[in-house]
Amino acid sequence: MPQITNTIRKNIRSLSDLKYRRKSGLFKAEGTKCVIDTLPYFEIHSIFATESWIEVHQITINPDKLFIVNRGELKEMSGLITTPDVIAVYHIPSYEFNPQSIETGLILALDDIQDPGNMGTIIRTADWFGVHHVLCSKGCVDIYNPKTVQSTMGAISRVKTYYGELKQMIMSLNTPNIYGTFLDGTSIYDTPLSTNGIIIMGNEGKGVSPEIAELVNKKLFIPSYPAGTVTSESLNVAVATAITLAEFRRNTK
Amino acid sequence: MPQITNTIRKNIRSLSDLKYRRKSGLFKAEGTKCVIDTLPYFEIHSIFATESWIEVHQITINPDKLFIVNRGELKEMSGLITTPDVIAVYHIPSYEFNPQSIETGLILALDDIQDPGNMGTIIRTADWFGVHHVLCSKGCVDIYNPKTVQSTMGAISRVKTYYGELKQMIMSLNTPNIYGTFLDGTSIYDTPLSTNGIIIMGNEGKGVSPEIAELVNKKLFIPSYPAGTVTSESLNVAVATAITLAEFRRNTK
Repeated sequence: MPQITNTIRKNIRSLSDLKYRRKSGLFKAEGTKCVIDTLPYFEIHSIFATESWIEVHQITINPDKLFIVNRGELKEMSGLITTPDVIAVYHIPSYEFNPQSIETGLILALDDIQDPGNMGTIIRTADWFGVHHVLCSKGCVDIYNPKTVQSTMGAISRVKTYYGELKQMIMSLNTPNIYGTFLDGTSIYDTPLSTNGIIIMGNEGKGVSPEIAELVNKKLFIPSYPAGTVTSESLNVAVATAITLAEFRRNTK
Repeated sequence: MPQITNTIRKNIRSLSDLKYRRKSGLFKAEGTKCVIDTLPYFEIHSIFATESWIEVHQITINPDKLFIVNRGELKEMSGLITTPDVIAVYHIPSYEFNPQSIETGLILALDDIQDPGNMGTIIRTADWFGVHHVLCSKGCVDIYNPKTVQSTMGAISRVKTYYGELKQMIMSLNTPNIYGTFLDGTSIYDTPLSTNGIIIMGNEGKGVSPEIAELVNKKLFIPSYPAGTVTSESLNVAVATAITLAEFRRNTK
């Protein structure tokens, strides 16, 4: 079994930073649930765990990649508030965005989602509602941010995300149905919802940017209750995504 | 205008801790949006802002309560990652839970919600869907946690939360309709949903606790898509709350 060094510890901690993830091509999953959920789906670079964790979990892995560490070392390597018992380091998979290879169905497009927790929750919700492809603008938070990885609750291994020029990606899919939620849209309950198309969700503060909004040909609105008496100006973006996806799937079950 | 001291700075920072909030009876709202949204609704203890913020925002407030500070001082007083330009300190309102004074309608009951962001998002969503009263078990994260205050996006001033023995509070409301979401419930789309009743949402990891679950007489389930092929084991609790409330309000618009 390999020995841990100061350099290794520092490098694993650095995976909390986008720059270092890009440079190394690696990302980390922290905590038992997150590691167990993702382990079968990504190419393993290394695993760091306490001796007791390894005894309990009996994972099958090349021993050259398994490091026994103590909780102090895990604390140093982790970026989370609660120190995990295990950290898995994976190679970042590269999904090439190829419009021809994406099956028809519902696709999410995210325009500058900033909050790592919102991003993770959106991916988790997409998985629940059978959305397998998510297009992300370059301004979206990185899906391999440790907080995002954790809040996907394993869904990161089942939903493919593509980062790039959002407008180009949307246009290349050539779908007649481009949805988005807006305060001046028509009620999502009164609008025919297709089983194919793109649903665009926008930034937490600014909403959908004008150049992306002009691609939308079906503007939806999630009614508040009682209608017209709203004092909250909006819903959280992960919540709006969830209500929207639930309504699409409700109508196409 | 009063002068800021080291003690004041330290005390404001300490409002990130539950213990100090309880001791002082105060809580803080941070950042322009959060402060502007809450300012008219709570009893102001003090406001800390940069000179330029005060110039731009021209709020009406007793000058004895307004402290001009610099960004370094705000950073020291804040618990947030991004330093705000303004911090408002309010007196914590005391809502007495009185079953007689709660109007009929939909009420949320939260069983040990742990994450401050989830709690805030749930309150924000309740506000959107016209739910004015939220019962919280003693194990719920404090609503006056600064992260929770922030993620309510102002809804904290419109939704009343009551902390106490959840079981007793639920039973005292004496409603025939007690709903909860469970993996073995019946589809929320096939169940008659009342305009009156209590909707129980459970802890992020453990769900609804057994002693609370036994009060539920209408077990609901949010169908995944396609039905039966789910690999994600659950939805985030704020997301599940949102889909549930949307469905209740959809049917009673």
